Amino acid sequence: MTQAGLDDLWAGRLASGARQMTSSAIRDLLEVTEQPEMISFAGGLPAPECFPAEELALAAERVLAMQAARALQYGPTEGYPPLRALVAALMRERGLPATPDQVLITSGSQQALDMLGKLLIDPGDPVLVEDPTYVGALQAWRPYRPRFVALPLDDAGLRIDALERALEDLGRAGQRPKFLYLVSCFQNPTGVTLAADRRAALIALAARHALPVIEDDPYGELCYSGAAPPALAALDAARWGALRHVVYLSTFSKVLAPGLRVGWVLAPTPLQQQLVQAKQGLDLHSGSLAQAIAYEACRDGLLARQIARIRRVYCARRDAMLRALERTMPPGVDWTEPDGGMFLWVRLPPGLDAGELLQRALERNVAFVPGAAFYANGGGAQTLRLNFSHATPARIEEGIARLAEAIADLQAAAANVNRAARPRRRRGR
Amino acid sequence: MTQAGLDDLWAGRLASGARQMTSSAIRDLLEVTEQPEMISFAGGLPAPECFPAEELALAAERVLAMQAARALQYGPTEGYPPLRALVAALMRERGLPATPDQVLITSGSQQALDMLGKLLIDPGDPVLVEDPTYVGALQAWRPYRPRFVALPLDDAGLRIDALERALEDLGRAGQRPKFLYLVSCFQNPTGVTLAADRRAALIALAARHALPVIEDDPYGELCYSGAAPPALAALDAARWGALRHVVYLSTFSKVLAPGLRVGWVLAPTPLQQQLVQAKQGLDLHSGSLAQAIAYEACRDGLLARQIARIRRVYCARRDAMLRALERTMPPGVDWTEPDGGMFLWVRLPPGLDAGELLQRALERNVAFVPGAAFYANGGGAQTLRLNFSHATPARIEEGIARLAEAIADLQAAAANVNRAARPRRRRGR
Repeated sequence: MTQAGLDDLWAGRLASGARQMTSSAIRDLLEVTEQPEMISFAGGLPAPECFPAEELALAAERVLAMQAARALQYGPTEGYPPLRALVAALMRERGLPATPDQVLITSGSQQALDMLGKLLIDPGDPVLVEDPTYVGALQAWRPYRPRFVALPLDDAGLRIDALERALEDLGRAGQRPKFLYLVSCFQNPTGVTLAADRRAALIALAARHALPVIEDDPYGELCYSGAAPPALAALDAARWGALRHVVYLSTFSKVLAPGLRVGWVLAPTPLQQQLVQAKQGLDLHSGSLAQAIAYEACRDGLLARQIARIRRVYCARRDAMLRALERTMPPGVDWTEPDGGMFLWVRLPPGLDAGELLQRALERNVAFVPGAAFYANGGGAQTLRLNFSHATPARIEEGIARLAEAIADLQAAAANVNRAARPRRRRGR
Repeated sequence: MTQAGLDDLWAGRLASGARQMTSSAIRDLLEVTEQPEMISFAGGLPAPECFPAEELALAAERVLAMQAARALQYGPTEGYPPLRALVAALMRERGLPATPDQVLITSGSQQALDMLGKLLIDPGDPVLVEDPTYVGALQAWRPYRPRFVALPLDDAGLRIDALERALEDLGRAGQRPKFLYLVSCFQNPTGVTLAADRRAALIALAARHALPVIEDDPYGELCYSGAAPPALAALDAARWGALRHVVYLSTFSKVLAPGLRVGWVLAPTPLQQQLVQAKQGLDLHSGSLAQAIAYEACRDGLLARQIARIRRVYCARRDAMLRALERTMPPGVDWTEPDGGMFLWVRLPPGLDAGELLQRALERNVAFVPGAAFYANGGGAQTLRLNFSHATPARIEEGIARLAEAIADLQAAAANVNRAARPRRRRGR
């Protein structure tokens, strides 16, 4: 068989949805950013210094000495029962009236995104997202072929006026969106948080328009200035006595360790059973051993200690990055100042392209993610995402200085092009 | 909001594919079968006595002492590199010329099934399956809405003449199947193995008809009588110098522990990159810690010791079940005699329904899975699947004796109904 025959055999058989799949700009950068000389602001990696390796080792030892037959066996699709109870208690601390039965453990939040897409999206369905939004959600849903309606953000998060207009426009067109998706705290990629008054307005709007809302909240505990506002899910549950409009996703990836792949979803009752059924087909259940270790490690209050430690470390790194940006960036560059999370968002002066900047930055051994990947429907060429959780403050300072050099470089090149172009333009006139 | 409003909000928004989802008959039985007095032949559970708990504990200790920053962090979608190399070596031992680059680690084989469905199935696409086939594959694929074409089996596995006829019929109708799916060794649910001559014929047929084949092989190492025939993937690769028509799936679930959720897929090059991209959207990557533990446990030859131990234990259990069936079953009941794996398949005499039998069996604290769930397009009411890997030989003997009683009971009830019915029929004539 020739290569053409081989391609026909497989590529010729791809489903329509599979043709929409895109590779993550972030994961594609991973290889480059793993080189030790590279200062990477690209990944969304937690600081490995904060991993509770000893506590997890002790937990693994206990689990395999006392619970091996259970932790190594197939388990219930819904998750390891003691972990579900622990997560429910954690949710109640966050103001969500959750019972263990309502918690579904997933293989990271990413799996919950895929499950929700599979359950809810038919080709052409309108799906409301922030502009920019988490690229992993776009990746999870593109194979289901929604029509993304991208809504603008400002420093107080999603613009509720824009949401309302979009709902009215869709209503006039006889359409209803499948859901609104947002990262409610310290958003990925911008770092902005939906303000408390907008949360109340959003919950009222969801009720008025019967709008399902997917609240993705991996970073809520990582706040460094003040406290995070109440979760949308908590407001929804308080209003109705139980979750109605909001599906809430969270994860142990940022507060414990992403390598466990343990996340969870809390959903209104009618959706909950559907999610369990979807998960059966996806992977039967999430890793029993990882779940048992997470439970065993957290049962004595490790999470509170972890969160305090991570806040301290990441707060210093955010501050280091903000100071370095202030010190080094040329006029015309601006950025968000997040109260928490792992990312901030930079906007270059008009005419500068973040993709071109990345090439010059990589030459200086500094990496970031160009912002365009986070825009559902294009745009964002002059934006970029910087992660501040992974590199140490000293490396952050060095990296931002190199980035500023790369920007100056790009500006100079652009100015040269403009100078070179000007005479031609004059002749043209 | 009323319950009706709540249902409309969510149930009214389900995607077309989600309406096809079915819950697994097996997982729904789990709650019942977890009661200690129950002798369960229902699940596909490995024997927990064979779990290498100490070796895994030692591996976890080493990983978390020496590799914590890597094992707890986000990792490459393709899998933990040392584990990919280990799996490639294992594949070469099975006659497959695999390199580490070609191995994609999945969250159990179940995830590979979902990924393949997502990549390849558009609504209405013909998909060829064995009749009966693995219920988890049907569950994974139903949301993608294929048209299942179910092909008969006999004691030598899939009937190649039926496959050839189906391909010709489809060809005449201007259709081509997306793929053929089969469990090639010690099939779930029947326990039958595709014979060597049929394997050669199948590979020739795949070449002639440009037919993609998904070979699911979780049980190949679990052979108790003679050796398993060469994998279809090995024959395909030998014919073409590399995988062409066959995607090969396997897992550590049966030889190490299912709770790790570590499986893998080997695919022809054009499909491999698509699978990686699909997996990014699904869960970013499989658990780093579980992969690192699996690697660390297996690097010194644990698998060979495990396989030898499991063969010894399961062989005794299979023999105990076959002897007990021989001793206790009434005439008219027949069953397969598998050379390996974890299951055998029972056919009841005409007129007896396995669903009704299950009720009577549960009353006697013995459980199994009625066969109907394994048929893609219905049928199989008089069949049932028995697992012989989980219960001890003594429990197997007791359980089969109880099952025989339940069958006798059902037969007596059926005879009473017939006696009662006969006069009426006579009157009717």
